[in-house]
Amino acid sequence: MSKEDGFGRVHGLGRVSIVGAGQVGTMLGMALVEAGSDAGVTDVSAFDRTPSVATASLERGAVHRILERAEEALEADTLVLAMPVPSILSFLEEFGSRLRPGSFLIDTASAKVAVTDAMRRTVPQAVHPLGGHPMAGTEVAGPAGARPELCRGAPFALVPVRDDPEALSRGRELARAIGALPVEVDAETHDRTVARTSHLPHLVAYALAGVAGEAFLTGDALPVLVSTGFGAATRLAASDPDMVAGFLWANAREVRRSVAEITEVLHRLSAAIEDGPDHLSAALSETRAPALDPV
Amino acid sequence: MSKEDGFGRVHGLGRVSIVGAGQVGTMLGMALVEAGSDAGVTDVSAFDRTPSVATASLERGAVHRILERAEEALEADTLVLAMPVPSILSFLEEFGSRLRPGSFLIDTASAKVAVTDAMRRTVPQAVHPLGGHPMAGTEVAGPAGARPELCRGAPFALVPVRDDPEALSRGRELARAIGALPVEVDAETHDRTVARTSHLPHLVAYALAGVAGEAFLTGDALPVLVSTGFGAATRLAASDPDMVAGFLWANAREVRRSVAEITEVLHRLSAAIEDGPDHLSAALSETRAPALDPV
Repeated sequence: MSKEDGFGRVHGLGRVSIVGAGQVGTMLGMALVEAGSDAGVTDVSAFDRTPSVATASLERGAVHRILERAEEALEADTLVLAMPVPSILSFLEEFGSRLRPGSFLIDTASAKVAVTDAMRRTVPQAVHPLGGHPMAGTEVAGPAGARPELCRGAPFALVPVRDDPEALSRGRELARAIGALPVEVDAETHDRTVARTSHLPHLVAYALAGVAGEAFLTGDALPVLVSTGFGAATRLAASDPDMVAGFLWANAREVRRSVAEITEVLHRLSAAIEDGPDHLSAALSETRAPALDPV
Repeated sequence: MSKEDGFGRVHGLGRVSIVGAGQVGTMLGMALVEAGSDAGVTDVSAFDRTPSVATASLERGAVHRILERAEEALEADTLVLAMPVPSILSFLEEFGSRLRPGSFLIDTASAKVAVTDAMRRTVPQAVHPLGGHPMAGTEVAGPAGARPELCRGAPFALVPVRDDPEALSRGRELARAIGALPVEVDAETHDRTVARTSHLPHLVAYALAGVAGEAFLTGDALPVLVSTGFGAATRLAASDPDMVAGFLWANAREVRRSVAEITEVLHRLSAAIEDGPDHLSAALSETRAPALDPV
């Protein structure tokens, strides 16, 4: 049980339940089990609609016990929703109104406007909801891909749902418990940023794999002529397509804008090839500088 | 000295000279020094127009000695041109006709039509020229980025310049000496393939960095909200821009075609967002499958 002070406020994360025991849920579970009583964690449990996924997560030491039904997670002091965005939205529609007063609700999705809007609409005032996005992970789907050490020093976006200092305070506690860097940010800024630092890179990785794959299929290109760089450039396309489709769909407007932006940059650089290698080299350096080069 | 049989033919790679002691030249030098007499290598030397680069390469154990002038490389039994494409073309114009009869000439550039055309035009019949492309490397420019262990099992494209079995035979010997997999391929197929497996991924990495960087500069996005995936997706944009500009310029036609192809795929996937997450997920899986998913 979590500790309560004389005013009935919970200290520490208490009983944690995670819904969705895939890579992200398992990663957080492992990190929280390790943090244990230092973070006031008294128990970690998880539900997954696919029982074998929940079992694999348990076997990796991410939880103390498996929940048989999603409803059981409503008993938690800290409820973490770690599914693809569409499933988070469905969960909130179905169970949001039944969350326990005083409990803390956070999600892990990478599209925050859609999720925090749904939290605002469905979750009672006595609950402390917060949008969350731990920005660490691998491209390997499921519990096998969980690497809790990647949380260390990684940004953990905390997105307010309403004026609720208690929700923010518990979010910071959760982020720090797993070694991450809490970053408070509004939903719109988060989604604009992540469209360009994560969602577009995912979409582009699929498109790069598609362009090469099409050329392999037609015999225009030889699949044997692939170097290590191709692996890096298309790594994100190995991600769980349901997760990727979920956040691209939930952040559609910013994703479409960023597609328009990269199309423009690609055409500008492609046209710069005409100017010869020296000018092109300068154009490439200038393009990458604000994101990659030290000032 | 290399061994000669009763007919004056060289066996083994003999005295090797590398022009361009950057990442690729240093990587090959280190692998050849290690292969040593097993590959008939009797001596490895290098020239670089930037003396400090040659010194750094020597310090990494890539060569036995540094050449003071590019012309000295013309004495070698095996001459390796490991500069950006425009410098290789200039070298061939200046020195191609002066190559030693019986010697073996190979380059390492990732654009092969331009280089093999220039070899065909400039190199005497008594020389054995071959286009080469070791498809291994890192994004760190210069001798410090050389990782010869990446050659092991990596494809090494061998591109005939003219009907010359001796050139191919020495190319295979060089590839095997460093543990790479020799892949014989014509220049056009090579350039069509590598446009899509390497040149486009490089261009896209710069464009991804550019889109995010522009949003950071204008304050539309927060540079702190960057995850490990962004690093992988933009890794190739950390490459030496002169090298990248060189191969994009030399393979301009196929690079432009592949830009048109990825633009089309991006717009198709972007439009598929409208169809909802389930359809989008299927479209993503189908797009990546020929390049990434096991059959």
